[in-house]
Amino acid sequence: MTNKIKPGQSESAASRRTFLKGGLAAGGAIVAGATAARSATPDKAITEPHEWAQTLGEGVDARPYGTPSEFEKHVVRRNVSWLTATPESSVNFTPLHELDGIITPNGLCFERHHAGIAVVDPAKHRLMINGLVDKPLVFTMDDLKRFPRVNKVFFLECAANSGMEWRGAQLNGCQFTHGMVHNVMYTGVPLKYLLEEAGIKSSAKWLMPEGADASGMTRSVPLFKALDDCLVAFAMNGEALRPEQGYPLRLVVPGWEGNMWVKWLRRIEVGDQPWHAREETSKYTDLMENGKARRFTWEMDCKSVITNPSPQAPLKHTQGQTVITGVAWSGRGTIKRVDVTIDGGKNWHTARLDGPSLDKSLHRFYFDFNWDGKPLLMQSRAIDSTGYVQPTKNELRKARGTNSIYHNNGIQTWHVRENGAVENVEIS
Amino acid sequence: MTNKIKPGQSESAASRRTFLKGGLAAGGAIVAGATAARSATPDKAITEPHEWAQTLGEGVDARPYGTPSEFEKHVVRRNVSWLTATPESSVNFTPLHELDGIITPNGLCFERHHAGIAVVDPAKHRLMINGLVDKPLVFTMDDLKRFPRVNKVFFLECAANSGMEWRGAQLNGCQFTHGMVHNVMYTGVPLKYLLEEAGIKSSAKWLMPEGADASGMTRSVPLFKALDDCLVAFAMNGEALRPEQGYPLRLVVPGWEGNMWVKWLRRIEVGDQPWHAREETSKYTDLMENGKARRFTWEMDCKSVITNPSPQAPLKHTQGQTVITGVAWSGRGTIKRVDVTIDGGKNWHTARLDGPSLDKSLHRFYFDFNWDGKPLLMQSRAIDSTGYVQPTKNELRKARGTNSIYHNNGIQTWHVRENGAVENVEIS
Repeated sequence: MTNKIKPGQSESAASRRTFLKGGLAAGGAIVAGATAARSATPDKAITEPHEWAQTLGEGVDARPYGTPSEFEKHVVRRNVSWLTATPESSVNFTPLHELDGIITPNGLCFERHHAGIAVVDPAKHRLMINGLVDKPLVFTMDDLKRFPRVNKVFFLECAANSGMEWRGAQLNGCQFTHGMVHNVMYTGVPLKYLLEEAGIKSSAKWLMPEGADASGMTRSVPLFKALDDCLVAFAMNGEALRPEQGYPLRLVVPGWEGNMWVKWLRRIEVGDQPWHAREETSKYTDLMENGKARRFTWEMDCKSVITNPSPQAPLKHTQGQTVITGVAWSGRGTIKRVDVTIDGGKNWHTARLDGPSLDKSLHRFYFDFNWDGKPLLMQSRAIDSTGYVQPTKNELRKARGTNSIYHNNGIQTWHVRENGAVENVEIS
Repeated sequence: MTNKIKPGQSESAASRRTFLKGGLAAGGAIVAGATAARSATPDKAITEPHEWAQTLGEGVDARPYGTPSEFEKHVVRRNVSWLTATPESSVNFTPLHELDGIITPNGLCFERHHAGIAVVDPAKHRLMINGLVDKPLVFTMDDLKRFPRVNKVFFLECAANSGMEWRGAQLNGCQFTHGMVHNVMYTGVPLKYLLEEAGIKSSAKWLMPEGADASGMTRSVPLFKALDDCLVAFAMNGEALRPEQGYPLRLVVPGWEGNMWVKWLRRIEVGDQPWHAREETSKYTDLMENGKARRFTWEMDCKSVITNPSPQAPLKHTQGQTVITGVAWSGRGTIKRVDVTIDGGKNWHTARLDGPSLDKSLHRFYFDFNWDGKPLLMQSRAIDSTGYVQPTKNELRKARGTNSIYHNNGIQTWHVRENGAVENVEIS
């Protein structure tokens, strides 16, 4: 039924052309009557010079820090005003449907605050490590930049990502159903170096990172995680952290829920037990069917979503060569495989994973196929390097009941109509 | 003489503390009298709440597309007004000394234009393939997005990068000596798919990509390169290309000089011989001592530079724990090793390569050492996966004479004074 191709495999140009036939009928126009001639007679768009070929553009002095094209003004983070009481304690979603590859540009990274974006002067900012340590320490930003640093690409996902979808298909686009995630390259000092410097007491088992903003965000982080791969990061995608991502310093807790990645990081207290902070008691727990709550569910489970086509990015053609793409990630490692179905799960096809495969990072996948023009029921299903298979939402409901808000990593279904429009649906 | 450490190696906290002693004397302050107490008595910066902890910050509705912190206003591209006649035909340099990791943020990517930044409407833009093909084709942007696409991180370096340094140490900062390079993740369609679609005649050997801007940039690209790894790219670092990088479409010619990466790509003509365009005859050739010019020197040779410390980013301390960092790249593959000297080449130390090692990409390196406070003569020397060793500038002059402008990949020397100031020097 589907005609799947994989770039890089040995296909003849002829077979590719056969495959691409549908695409060309609707898309790339063959220049009539012009074969192998330098003097082709293409359409006006190519023969008549545009205004941009007849005038000088802006010079290099115009934008010391560049900005996107004026034709890309729709590519922005979006918030949902009814979701929270105030914009200072709210969420701004990544436009996943407008992105490709695995790097989220800094200006489009999902943001979530509890008291707005703190404006912190890096010259005045300090990081203190205290508690069960030999020597409490206070670091300036310059101090931290004298420690050995590393660079790692990690996804950050809010535990509440897709939370509204527990009730069934709700929101009209992957920006809102899955946009509480971003993926950047961090530069930072491994937290273990700073803890070694302070000297950890043998009784130490937990850390409490604290933010410098007005909400004073705190979470309990187990020591083993801190000694494993946590970073005290000061740069993202090459440049200084953005204000809404904790400038000048944030904790990076790879693969674990975003709420623990404390921003505007000012203090790390070392203790022997968890603090039971607000954000790990009244929030970020999973109320089960029997009335008990799962706690400390830190790891983000393996998940994926098709980003294109999707409700905000419908297909512009009605048959032929078509690209389905999306992202997959796991808090436990890399992505081993992504399967895609276009018939609601009757048949599954192995997607093409593309770009670097990095630990605890987004992975980009594609499914290139020849659309027959009939409605599609699209899903993606990710499998991570531990062998964990992304479940259906109903499988999750069966295991956890119907009270949950957090940790919905269930399979997402999009329905593509014959006219290319896409809607959020759920298969019972 | 140097006390080098490598993160990840099994070092005891004690030995690390010994190493870090110098750093702490000048940097991270030990909180006086507070040992293992939760009630430490640190300095005012940590005990007295800052203004940012007492007020609400901006909400998520403030910046749909985010911007850097107000404290990072100095992190910008810079141009040199005396270098070119007009800003519309000029260069804006990447602030390498302000960056870390290997991703260049889109707003800070080196830019070079010949007639300013063309403002191209993607809905009107077309790409034509004509010449020695079976079927000349015209593609819309939507057409191109129906072809299988890939994601790759590549450096782009202008052949003239470091060109002014042929005459000896000239410019006061790596932004100006080495800032005609950037490194981003591209999303695009392999050019070979489009050429296969058009059907290449057996006599075809060359391509001429042409830009849609007023300069109508053209370069001759050999067919073998196009069939190997060239991309027709529409996204960088996840989002649409920036205007100054050819929005909505540019040619990506991995590892080859940036001038060939035609921006605002509107046409690719297929031919049987090179076109001998302006940019490959009067420009982008290397005049040798005997009066003959090297031509078609496309590949960018293996190169490296220390970005910190450097003239624009002096050391802020005068001894102890110190991080030296920089970037290395090669148009022929990956970086196998980077050596660093701090004594003008008497002793060389293997630098720590960090972050993903990607083909034809920047690689980040670090040399973490204990500075004795005496002046330093710092150099880095990169070795790529083919075994090629980055030469000295004098070795290059011996081989190519003194007429060259392009392809200076010689070793850069920075002199660090006792007060931390850094200057551009050359060792004879």
